[in-house]
Amino acid sequence: MSIRFPSKLLEEAVNEFSSLPGIGRKTAFRLVMHLLRRDSAEVRRFGETITRLREDVCYCSVCHGISDTPVCEICSDSSRDISTICVVESVQDVMAVENTRQYRGLYHVLGGIISPVDGVGPSDLTIANLEERVRRGGIREVILALSTTMEGDTTNFYIYKRLAGHDIRITTLARGVAIGDILEYTDEITLGQSIINRRLFSLPSQG
Amino acid sequence: MSIRFPSKLLEEAVNEFSSLPGIGRKTAFRLVMHLLRRDSAEVRRFGETITRLREDVCYCSVCHGISDTPVCEICSDSSRDISTICVVESVQDVMAVENTRQYRGLYHVLGGIISPVDGVGPSDLTIANLEERVRRGGIREVILALSTTMEGDTTNFYIYKRLAGHDIRITTLARGVAIGDILEYTDEITLGQSIINRRLFSLPSQG
Repeated sequence: MSIRFPSKLLEEAVNEFSSLPGIGRKTAFRLVMHLLRRDSAEVRRFGETITRLREDVCYCSVCHGISDTPVCEICSDSSRDISTICVVESVQDVMAVENTRQYRGLYHVLGGIISPVDGVGPSDLTIANLEERVRRGGIREVILALSTTMEGDTTNFYIYKRLAGHDIRITTLARGVAIGDILEYTDEITLGQSIINRRLFSLPSQG
Repeated sequence: MSIRFPSKLLEEAVNEFSSLPGIGRKTAFRLVMHLLRRDSAEVRRFGETITRLREDVCYCSVCHGISDTPVCEICSDSSRDISTICVVESVQDVMAVENTRQYRGLYHVLGGIISPVDGVGPSDLTIANLEERVRRGGIREVILALSTTMEGDTTNFYIYKRLAGHDIRITTLARGVAIGDILEYTDEITLGQSIINRRLFSLPSQG
């Protein structure tokens, strides 16, 4: 669309929306037209929420996740197991693990993953802060919960080397056939790993 | 996702984005995380552009299209043919017709289309204003350029009845096989119309 816009305001709004990942010009236009039909107060709230988000966003000084307070709810929750740290890439991953309701320890948000292609090195991540948390003591286990990609493996390896001198267990998430997966369509590496790491069969416990 | 957010700010921003049509919660989250990585000044501009869009948006008093000025650029362009009005549903359609560079007349933006299902009646549109423009005189032709849907046909018919008493030509866009279309896959109604309205073959003019 090399279209001349009838209004600068309109054009600017379409440009702003098009700058978001995955939003093309047609979609941006549709979103802008939708906002124009919405109540003025609602749209003002939308705009202000975005501005406030970026300006007032705060990161937890302990786990580096997004938080409204200097120390996040999870890190300041005294009922949690403070001897275990689960290392994740982003705050989305914290939410994904929390959603399982299977984990009661703390987190450490790296803020990314080592990726030479994207120019992300160890110093761009919060790995030094993780090491500092471990050095302060009281940690018994660090769970590496990164993506099972080349970048994830590289980052796992790097963190493992950095923490190796400390008296802690370093674990990673179990790899295996996902629940609901059809064996025929499971990739051979996952399937191979799940055979190597096979476990004793147990009947499901009677709830 | 019934996930508890680690931050109210984050949750509010995700909620705002999810309120847009076609944006689900996962996409909203991705957009918000993208904004958090962007420069603070850029994000402030984004937020302010949205707020300003809705508050400062202005509609042309003649054609009712979106404009930055009380009378839009097209309506105030003295080189255009002021005796022809092209009636369209929205400002996107104005831009689509302008983009063809085949039309030098004026426009009239209805702001929608008659759709009893969606609760849109004639009084919700700018049809009375169109009639007023015609009544003031100087108009020779009104082109009905609405979608070729049931709602478009209803609206065409309604406008036709309202304007029938005036000494003007009322035309609609030609219906036919779209350029690039394969005949076999053209629907029978379009194909039938294009046979009925067949035209004399002419060799393309030598540019």
